[in-house]
Amino acid sequence: MALNFTVPGLDEATSEKVIAILQSRLSQEQETALILKHAHWNMKGKEFIGIHEMMDPEVDSVLNMADETAERIATLGGSPAGRPDDIMKNRDWDGITMTGRQDALDYLKALDTYYTTFIKRDREAIKELDDLDIVSSNILQDHVQELEHFQWFMRSHLF
Amino acid sequence: MALNFTVPGLDEATSEKVIAILQSRLSQEQETALILKHAHWNMKGKEFIGIHEMMDPEVDSVLNMADETAERIATLGGSPAGRPDDIMKNRDWDGITMTGRQDALDYLKALDTYYTTFIKRDREAIKELDDLDIVSSNILQDHVQELEHFQWFMRSHLF
Amino acid sequence: MALNFTVPGLDEATSEKVIAILQSRLSQEQETALILKHAHWNMKGKEFIGIHEMMDPEVDSVLNMADETAERIATLGGSPAGRPDDIMKNRDWDGITMTGRQDALDYLKALDTYYTTFIKRDREAIKELDDLDIVSSNILQDHVQELEHFQWFMRSHLF
Amino acid sequence: MALNFTVPGLDEATSEKVIAILQSRLSQEQETALILKHAHWNMKGKEFIGIHEMMDPEVDSVLNMADETAERIATLGGSPAGRPDDIMKNRDWDGITMTGRQDALDYLKALDTYYTTFIKRDREAIKELDDLDIVSSNILQDHVQELEHFQWFMRSHLF
Amino acid sequence: MALNFTVPGLDEATSEKVIAILQSRLSQEQETALILKHAHWNMKGKEFIGIHEMMDPEVDSVLNMADETAERIATLGGSPAGRPDDIMKNRDWDGITMTGRQDALDYLKALDTYYTTFIKRDREAIKELDDLDIVSSNILQDHVQELEHFQWFMRSHLF
Amino acid sequence: MALNFTVPGLDEATSEKVIAILQSRLSQEQETALILKHAHWNMKGKEFIGIHEMMDPEVDSVLNMADETAERIATLGGSPAGRPDDIMKNRDWDGITMTGRQDALDYLKALDTYYTTFIKRDREAIKELDDLDIVSSNILQDHVQELEHFQWFMRSHLF
Amino acid sequence: MALNFTVPGLDEATSEKVIAILQSRLSQEQETALILKHAHWNMKGKEFIGIHEMMDPEVDSVLNMADETAERIATLGGSPAGRPDDIMKNRDWDGITMTGRQDALDYLKALDTYYTTFIKRDREAIKELDDLDIVSSNILQDHVQELEHFQWFMRSHLF
Amino acid sequence: MALNFTVPGLDEATSEKVIAILQSRLSQEQETALILKHAHWNMKGKEFIGIHEMMDPEVDSVLNMADETAERIATLGGSPAGRPDDIMKNRDWDGITMTGRQDALDYLKALDTYYTTFIKRDREAIKELDDLDIVSSNILQDHVQELEHFQWFMRSHLF
Amino acid sequence: MALNFTVPGLDEATSEKVIAILQSRLSQEQETALILKHAHWNMKGKEFIGIHEMMDPEVDSVLNMADETAERIATLGGSPAGRPDDIMKNRDWDGITMTGRQDALDYLKALDTYYTTFIKRDREAIKELDDLDIVSSNILQDHVQELEHFQWFMRSHLF
Amino acid sequence: MALNFTVPGLDEATSEKVIAILQSRLSQEQETALILKHAHWNMKGKEFIGIHEMMDPEVDSVLNMADETAERIATLGGSPAGRPDDIMKNRDWDGITMTGRQDALDYLKALDTYYTTFIKRDREAIKELDDLDIVSSNILQDHVQELEHFQWFMRSHLF
Amino acid sequence: MALNFTVPGLDEATSEKVIAILQSRLSQEQETALILKHAHWNMKGKEFIGIHEMMDPEVDSVLNMADETAERIATLGGSPAGRPDDIMKNRDWDGITMTGRQDALDYLKALDTYYTTFIKRDREAIKELDDLDIVSSNILQDHVQELEHFQWFMRSHLF
Amino acid sequence: MALNFTVPGLDEATSEKVIAILQSRLSQEQETALILKHAHWNMKGKEFIGIHEMMDPEVDSVLNMADETAERIATLGGSPAGRPDDIMKNRDWDGITMTGRQDALDYLKALDTYYTTFIKRDREAIKELDDLDIVSSNILQDHVQELEHFQWFMRSHLF
Repeated sequence: MALNFTVPGLDEATSEKVIAILQSRLSQEQETALILKHAHWNMKGKEFIGIHEMMDPEVDSVLNMADETAERIATLGGSPAGRPDDIMKNRDWDGITMTGRQDALDYLKALDTYYTTFIKRDREAIKELDDLDIVSSNILQDHVQELEHFQWFMRSHLF
Repeated sequence: MALNFTVPGLDEATSEKVIAILQSRLSQEQETALILKHAHWNMKGKEFIGIHEMMDPEVDSVLNMADETAERIATLGGSPAGRPDDIMKNRDWDGITMTGRQDALDYLKALDTYYTTFIKRDREAIKELDDLDIVSSNILQDHVQELEHFQWFMRSHLF
Repeated sequence: MALNFTVPGLDEATSEKVIAILQSRLSQEQETALILKHAHWNMKGKEFIGIHEMMDPEVDSVLNMADETAERIATLGGSPAGRPDDIMKNRDWDGITMTGRQDALDYLKALDTYYTTFIKRDREAIKELDDLDIVSSNILQDHVQELEHFQWFMRSHLF
Repeated sequence: MALNFTVPGLDEATSEKVIAILQSRLSQEQETALILKHAHWNMKGKEFIGIHEMMDPEVDSVLNMADETAERIATLGGSPAGRPDDIMKNRDWDGITMTGRQDALDYLKALDTYYTTFIKRDREAIKELDDLDIVSSNILQDHVQELEHFQWFMRSHLF
Repeated sequence: MALNFTVPGLDEATSEKVIAILQSRLSQEQETALILKHAHWNMKGKEFIGIHEMMDPEVDSVLNMADETAERIATLGGSPAGRPDDIMKNRDWDGITMTGRQDALDYLKALDTYYTTFIKRDREAIKELDDLDIVSSNILQDHVQELEHFQWFMRSHLF
Repeated sequence: MALNFTVPGLDEATSEKVIAILQSRLSQEQETALILKHAHWNMKGKEFIGIHEMMDPEVDSVLNMADETAERIATLGGSPAGRPDDIMKNRDWDGITMTGRQDALDYLKALDTYYTTFIKRDREAIKELDDLDIVSSNILQDHVQELEHFQWFMRSHLF
Repeated sequence: MALNFTVPGLDEATSEKVIAILQSRLSQEQETALILKHAHWNMKGKEFIGIHEMMDPEVDSVLNMADETAERIATLGGSPAGRPDDIMKNRDWDGITMTGRQDALDYLKALDTYYTTFIKRDREAIKELDDLDIVSSNILQDHVQELEHFQWFMRSHLF
Repeated sequence: MALNFTVPGLDEATSEKVIAILQSRLSQEQETALILKHAHWNMKGKEFIGIHEMMDPEVDSVLNMADETAERIATLGGSPAGRPDDIMKNRDWDGITMTGRQDALDYLKALDTYYTTFIKRDREAIKELDDLDIVSSNILQDHVQELEHFQWFMRSHLF
Repeated sequence: MALNFTVPGLDEATSEKVIAILQSRLSQEQETALILKHAHWNMKGKEFIGIHEMMDPEVDSVLNMADETAERIATLGGSPAGRPDDIMKNRDWDGITMTGRQDALDYLKALDTYYTTFIKRDREAIKELDDLDIVSSNILQDHVQELEHFQWFMRSHLF
Repeated sequence: MALNFTVPGLDEATSEKVIAILQSRLSQEQETALILKHAHWNMKGKEFIGIHEMMDPEVDSVLNMADETAERIATLGGSPAGRPDDIMKNRDWDGITMTGRQDALDYLKALDTYYTTFIKRDREAIKELDDLDIVSSNILQDHVQELEHFQWFMRSHLF
Repeated sequence: MALNFTVPGLDEATSEKVIAILQSRLSQEQETALILKHAHWNMKGKEFIGIHEMMDPEVDSVLNMADETAERIATLGGSPAGRPDDIMKNRDWDGITMTGRQDALDYLKALDTYYTTFIKRDREAIKELDDLDIVSSNILQDHVQELEHFQWFMRSHLF
Repeated sequence: MALNFTVPGLDEATSEKVIAILQSRLSQEQETALILKHAHWNMKGKEFIGIHEMMDPEVDSVLNMADETAERIATLGGSPAGRPDDIMKNRDWDGITMTGRQDALDYLKALDTYYTTFIKRDREAIKELDDLDIVSSNILQDHVQELEHFQWFMRSHLF
């Protein structure tokens, strides 16, 4: 795919490398928003209301991350793929397998495991991006700061 | 799946029928939110800014529909399935195949076709729900009113 | 008038029937907004300020009804007629004949009579729409609920 | 009680039947607001703060329902009875017997039982109203949707 | 009833005396909120709209008083009784006997009489509390200031 | 029509001249609000969404002008006529003849022509009012400034 | 009093004439704010609440006029005199003599008479200022527009 | 002056004493608001902008005090006198004599002296009111707290 | 330390006694804000999110108390000492010794014990201040009301 | 330059004269916004913070003036020139020569001199526009009122 | 130019290098805000309204960048030069030459070319600053992220 | 202290080094908030009000920094120590020794000296963190940017 344009000061080859890295992160961000809602709807237990309500600001936050990542891809001249088919095609990480009404804390455990992988992948992407495009790297650094903070929220219920 | 409870005045068999209908609608609502964003990010052309900005309130609207549908399923004692895997498993409608940077009007055409199927499926669900659970039917009736209004927005650019 | 499109799941003949019903209601809603302002400007008397200020939220409410009705017509593929000429042409109900500075309570009496006809016409339209298009019927049902509530406000000063 | 007026398109006999149904629902809505506050003030336990705060929006919601029901009675030409004496006189349902400082989850259990009866009575009223006055029926349908959603919140802590 | 705890610096016997005084005030505050709404819904007459709207902020104000009183009882280690049964059991004051659609000014007269008793009882409670718990006394002093101000509003229509 | 009063410092004859001028402007302002909505509902084309949304703030603006003009008439002791019948009776200018779904730019062309007449009439009124009542003249001067600005918005799409 | 400075383009003699005119208007604006509050506190009668609440926005409005007038004097290099002593010294108009609890409509009558003088004096000032300083004249023109509108509110209760 | 009514639990003689005390405080509060504005408009010097802007929230605060004091008088059955004539008649304290453009710090000095007398008079009133009406005393206690805090603001520039 | 000034009506010796009492309360209020945040950051357990979020409004509340206390000292002519060194120097009460990640309920237990001492000290200060300066006493009375209410929140989780 | 259009009721020759006058004012307004920021950034001294913060609302105000002036030019069919090159080309007034960190009061002195010229030029423009286009004249009259008020703010620090 | 101070941890020579880099960026940011407004005022064409409105948030954004850059220079002990003369003196990049009413898309083309140079210069500055002062580099990195995003908006209309 | 967990992609040894660095910064941030308030309360002089009010947004800002630093420590699996004892234990920097009522500018001088050390320590921490954890480094970089900006505010009054 030849790019029509890219950001000033970056060559096309570099831009395409950055786009590929960001596309993977976009798909995982989209999956994460779906998974958080899935847990939000299916959890139960004595601690229901607090944990149920804790999920919604994180959903908004992750949806904003996806928007920022996708529009960065577009800014670089790429075309972000955001349909459910694209999530499945790009997925080379584990989703969550928990379904049905389960205790809120069990959903937090499953999400904690998922976040560990998610954040590791984001940190690897940051390292690669540092040498390619500092602006794209900055975007992911801010995402990681927020995701790690939310993971602490989840872990505070568990460990 | 035996339900732990359901809403007062509804028997379990009826509730399960309602849940099955709503689960299908939930998955399509989730797909729709992804597709609208996909179009939002990839469109271009002379009319870019107006159409690009027109999508975001509709995304919010459809995400709220999904939340309302999923929490109705839970209220009926069911467990809404909301992961990307669940969207793919429940999909017996056509998504959109358009990808890459395309003219905004072409994305509107593809979405218009998609909405026609989406709304027809919702109207069929309303008919089935009318005899099962008036509250669930009311929820979908409100969704259809909004979806048809947005489809008019899209068609106003095309026909 | 052949329609370019209509909402999914409705045939063209049905849509045209719905459009005709809604066009009549639109014209009366537009007239009502004008009449309420007319009374708002011309009333006087010891109870002036309370009744004068009571009219404005109802004007906003009726203007929103007209917008909703007109955009429903457009959604159905029709074209809503909204000029003063169109109000006069469609008018087969009685307006109000009271003009000039009059006691606020006299304006309420004239409006109460007008609302009785207005609401009756809306309720008849709902009955017809129930078999044609549930979404259009829902729209008018919500209008009637609000109009009857405001009529109670007016009647509370009179009976 | 002869009515001074009723809504256009409804005869007096029908209006009186609607009013009788709504009066019963009004009294139970008023009782519910008192009971929810009673539980809000007396609950305790490890999950206190989340459940304590969960009650207040529901209290506001139920107070709005009572206002809407009572003003519908007045709109129909009736006179809504809203004093504590009226609640007691109209009560042909069970209140709650739990008093004193108790675990929050025990209060939720008592309220869940109470809500089951409350919603059943509302659903029966809807059935009766469907043939009498669609606007009054719509009002209660919206109440039931909200009440069932809150009951799911309570049940999510219990089952 | 043995208290689990009370506020630092107060002994249990004193706390129980304060709780008993506040429980009476709580029940009357709850009744007052119901009565104000009852009048709000049933009044009519030339001055309807202004007086009708004047009631709602006072309802909110009295509901907040009840919340403050009840949570003070709980803070002192007591358990506030807030069900309709509790209002009736604690009532040793006169409610209002006016029902049905009546002139707004007649409702104000009935409420003015009711407020005179209500405020007198509150002022007696303040005197008793002054020697028991200054914080509880402060709470009622603020209530009386507000109630007397609203009584002036009512009296301004009458005398 | 003998006036009950007029503003201090103006004689009755002058006031009546001012009222007559303002009444004509009021009717045209009311017609303009109707026409702008008519165009808002019926336009279509590639540039739909931007132009459709551009109309609504102008509708609000023109409705406020009508309110200001009508209340100035009342302040001068006159009685503003605001029913649809009054618009038709006072109309000695051309409305628009365009109806049905048309390209947004065509509606702008029709409105541009209409605005040219509208503004000319307003400017003539200002000249007459300058010698009669400076306050009424100021009101129309502000209207003209806003109307000319909106006409520039329309013309920017056309010329 | 020699001025330290005045606005560019105006000579000192002209500025002093403008200052003298504005000082008189400032004192009357300050008196008006006091008188409106005096009436607000002392009125009574069946129409109390609506008229009582109608006064407060006018008080704010007149206080803003005084602030604008005084700061214009200062801008012109003058020093505005705003103490109660200054009001009394500058007063060559009639205040109101009504005191004590009186019917709201009687207070409106007294204020209507007062406003007639007030507005006449303002209109005379505008005439004088037109040849001296257009900016100062504009300020008073805006004041008169607002004052006349409020006088219409008062007169609507009376004539 | 015989009172039509007074607050429940207070006899008429006591009420009249309270009213007399509050009337004096009302007049001084009204004078204070005028004086603060007078200083606000006439001050100058290197520290102009900060001190100029510091006055306005205090003006609002003192105007609210006057409103609260006057409505307390009315609540007690009295009639608050609020015209400029009434300020002059009740004045048995010293106003300020500073006029013309002066250094901001000199205005603060004059106001500091004025506040010392003002607060002393308020504290004496509190002592008298404590035995007459605790609610009226509370009102003035809150005023004093605020006035002393503002005096500290002024003194922080001076000592 | 000789004071430069104090509030009108208080002598210097009294003021110095009040200042000494308030300084102790200021230091404990500052320590409390630090301790609440310390607990907020270190708590964990199943009930984490609700209790964690419950702390922040109380931190804001206590920081406002400290500000109010300190500015009262300054108003009285004193100089509030607010550095960490000053907290340590004034501390003659027990802080909390709990550190590290601990169960949220254990932190609540430690804070409950701390609050008991804190409130006792505040109530003793109120008694001393009642004879010295009613305004300072009022300030602490409001603080105690709020602190006792928050202690009830904590105790509701524990007893 | 032939105009494509101009406002209704104005001929092209007149419009071109108005445009030429407004273009000069636009350039000076743009320069003023730059100069105010320049001073805002470079000032220092004991009175820094108050004067520094006083500049920003004036910058916003002057930027709005420029927007209003430029869009008036466009409304008249002209094309406003707003690049830095255009400011320099149109400049026939003196800018300010002060640069570097200087005392805030010295910057105010330089700006006061600059404003004197700026306002004089605006007042001359108003005189010319009065005979050409009253709407354009009104726009500049409002600008002058605001500019003179801000000049008073500056002068209050200096004279 | 000897600096009076600079930020802790940076020597004077380094600071001066940073200041020189930032001064160039400041001047271009100021020019950009002027140019964007110039285009905003002069564009026309079918897509006018959407593109016209798209410019204003970017103008605000670029004005904030200039403020941030200038205050960073001042923080480093330098003195930012912000007059129009300074923009011209520092300009070693190309402005835009397009003037007069032109199609909106043509203005976007001219601005796209301008932004390419602007962003390249900012990216070069970031590289230089990385070794001198990380905080200044961070500031420009955030600017570039925003500028590239807006350039994508423009390019979406063009390519 | 063995950590229960740390952020994904960081080993425990690294996390402990980061935690130790951040703990020092947390204690100094907490001290800074106390010191700023201390100065806020004790300053006086001609420039009082501006400088007094300049402190509060900085207090909020520094309290937010402390919250962010502490929650980062917790996110890394550490336990932030935030009691006054902890501030004293960790303090290896100089606080301020100024106490009592002093000129505002003298407090600024003392704070300027304190900030120089504070910022130097933060910049050293950033250098160490760059190789350990980029997210923690980013957090402190943002803090330094804000602190240096506020130091410029202070220095603008002094140098």
